[in-house]
Amino acid sequence: MFYKLLFSYDMKNAHVISIGNELLIGDTINTNASKIGNYLTESGFEVSRGFTIPDNPHIIRKQVLRSLKIADLTIVTGGLGPTHDDVTKKVVAEIFESELVEHAPVMEHIESIFKKRGFSLSASNREQAMIPQACEVLFNKMGTAPGMWFHRNGNYLALLPGVPYEMEYLMEFEVMPKIKTVFPEQDVWVTEYFKTAGIPESTLSDRVGSLEEFVANGVGIAYLPNPSGVTIRISANGNTPEAAGGKLKILRSQLNERAGDYIYGKGKNLKLAEVIGTILKEKNLSIAVAESCTGGFVANEITNIPGSSAYMKGGIIAYSNEIKIKTLSVDADDINREGAVSKTVAIQMADGVSKAFNADIGISTTGIAGPGGATPEKPVGLVWMGFSIQGYNFALKAIFTNNRLINKERTAMVVLECIRRQLLGIQGTPYELKPHYP
Amino acid sequence: MFYKLLFSYDMKNAHVISIGNELLIGDTINTNASKIGNYLTESGFEVSRGFTIPDNPHIIRKQVLRSLKIADLTIVTGGLGPTHDDVTKKVVAEIFESELVEHAPVMEHIESIFKKRGFSLSASNREQAMIPQACEVLFNKMGTAPGMWFHRNGNYLALLPGVPYEMEYLMEFEVMPKIKTVFPEQDVWVTEYFKTAGIPESTLSDRVGSLEEFVANGVGIAYLPNPSGVTIRISANGNTPEAAGGKLKILRSQLNERAGDYIYGKGKNLKLAEVIGTILKEKNLSIAVAESCTGGFVANEITNIPGSSAYMKGGIIAYSNEIKIKTLSVDADDINREGAVSKTVAIQMADGVSKAFNADIGISTTGIAGPGGATPEKPVGLVWMGFSIQGYNFALKAIFTNNRLINKERTAMVVLECIRRQLLGIQGTPYELKPHYP
Repeated sequence: MFYKLLFSYDMKNAHVISIGNELLIGDTINTNASKIGNYLTESGFEVSRGFTIPDNPHIIRKQVLRSLKIADLTIVTGGLGPTHDDVTKKVVAEIFESELVEHAPVMEHIESIFKKRGFSLSASNREQAMIPQACEVLFNKMGTAPGMWFHRNGNYLALLPGVPYEMEYLMEFEVMPKIKTVFPEQDVWVTEYFKTAGIPESTLSDRVGSLEEFVANGVGIAYLPNPSGVTIRISANGNTPEAAGGKLKILRSQLNERAGDYIYGKGKNLKLAEVIGTILKEKNLSIAVAESCTGGFVANEITNIPGSSAYMKGGIIAYSNEIKIKTLSVDADDINREGAVSKTVAIQMADGVSKAFNADIGISTTGIAGPGGATPEKPVGLVWMGFSIQGYNFALKAIFTNNRLINKERTAMVVLECIRRQLLGIQGTPYELKPHYP
Repeated sequence: MFYKLLFSYDMKNAHVISIGNELLIGDTINTNASKIGNYLTESGFEVSRGFTIPDNPHIIRKQVLRSLKIADLTIVTGGLGPTHDDVTKKVVAEIFESELVEHAPVMEHIESIFKKRGFSLSASNREQAMIPQACEVLFNKMGTAPGMWFHRNGNYLALLPGVPYEMEYLMEFEVMPKIKTVFPEQDVWVTEYFKTAGIPESTLSDRVGSLEEFVANGVGIAYLPNPSGVTIRISANGNTPEAAGGKLKILRSQLNERAGDYIYGKGKNLKLAEVIGTILKEKNLSIAVAESCTGGFVANEITNIPGSSAYMKGGIIAYSNEIKIKTLSVDADDINREGAVSKTVAIQMADGVSKAFNADIGISTTGIAGPGGATPEKPVGLVWMGFSIQGYNFALKAIFTNNRLINKERTAMVVLECIRRQLLGIQGTPYELKPHYP
């Protein structure tokens, strides 16, 4: 891992406390702590410590008291549910010597959720609308457990539910605005994520270099690899977003100069399928997919994007040769001669699906996802990907890994990145795979 | 979250320390802590605390000293790499007042790795073979950073690299055997996971009850909800795996008696699609899917299972009405009259796909995944699911959430669980949804 000068000395200090035996035992992976770390870092905090503690009132009390003393801001997740193990609220109410009183808007909200689902309200659900008087409610539109915001002697404490999307909603729409209000003088960190696809981390870092000449004085760069591509993270601090962003200018332009063709967009959670969607909408083009080895993964990625019905015509999951022939007009003789995992079949599938769905672009996948199905000539990980772009047909061949799920993910990345490059007129293919023509 | 008597009082106590700025910032999700938590829990420890701390020698020193005093066993990951940020080894060598000396077998191993990759060895790579005299080496076959095992006054400390598969290798093949040697009298914990679908956590726990009469004396039960179902975890300790397993007998049979119909199988990582696959293979039946709102998610779940090509004929992702009519023989008049999100269209899609793919079972989804597409009568989250099981046709209607991705996941769970119940002749539908007939 390659990290430079992440924290400066005058930053405010934050603690993240994750409550739950299931986290300590390892039944649940603590994704909340990372998400919260991201939010706090971007709003200028040094996240100096993370704690994972059990559902034990005594331990919760001790840790919250300690963090409240040391940290400018403490975020606590978990233990706000309706069961009797959920003790966080009670413990914190005691710390603030504050009574629990019913909060009418929260009660109304809980009732409306239950009414909508057709369930009746239990006593423990009603209990969730009881709020310590000492706090401000962080109204949780996504669920029944409200968040809470406390302060003492200039130190702040937020309690958030452990359900990831509820926590995230509250961080984004309740905690972040509060932070801006109570820490107005805070240096902000501006972080930008550049997402790449179809280039290995080592090649990318060779191309970009360490950029050491630009990395100093509260400016940093990091490479974050994962199966769907490498993310480059750059960050800088300053009094204002503009001042911090200004420091990134040269880094940003160097990045674009050195690796621009590989960067499909900016934003930590940006998906390649979203970028493709934007391009397709701009160019008023439609797409359809024919999947064998990816079995729906590519279509699922495309349809995960809200509004994708505007350009996604649909797809065929053609696991059997019979369906490839019948629905996608693949030539039975070609299957017999070259096999279903072949250039010819890949191209015919892409061409066939574009015609069957009356789409401008057809893409296809056929391969040996594994663990079974390999032959001496066709190993696990071999994938042919077919493209039919307004009648321009070709295929790419790759050999990925021994892992079925990673093979699906990699295939989807290569297929989508190839489409991106074609639509934008960018030279070259992902991983510099050689194009094969009919 | 509902956890009972997870830990008994005479258990040894473990701390997990995760080192790395990237964890605090949230660029990396801390999967290591969960994995280690699993290992330690199964080998009889109470994991009482997790700490995430920065790459800072002073803070590392303080935390390691503290844990070494409190915890019987401390596992530290991270900070053992070749860069100058990796300071863990030096700090711990200082704590043990121990000199670093070159370890010949480790040096040989590092050299051979570099030779194989065709790289030359840098000074910082050589540095990795320098080991504190006070420790035993945990030989890392998977990488260049060796693990280390220390002890002081009956307290033990392991340093492991942060790379997940290297950490896992060392836990499994080096740390676990050491634990058995130095804590021979330690009880083992046996854990079993029962997976359910189509029943809310609250209903499930009402049905099962707290099982308080059986939960005591080192036996525990926990409910772990997530969007694809609720997992019930039971665990017990004993001198031997057999003794511990014996204590689970009555819990296991009570669970099966009270909630057996909802339990689709055992195993933490078991997937519903895998269970369906096994049943389909046994009954020699095939399946095909027609997806609108789930856009490939259901097919992807089914095809994630190795060997699924034996029963999965394939599917159609029919985002447009045109395709529903053309490929799935849905009646255009019915679409006009009732809309694409309707009972009639769902049933016709399921029936149509079973015929088009010549499959025994056809399933379909059509709904408003969101965030767009809602009307006053058809809110975001409304989904119709169609079933055609050897000619027996019906549909289920549900209203899920406002979240597009969760709606896809929930829909897939309900559809697959409904198929499981039908195939096994289990009464009732997931979430007790009312069946609608043509």
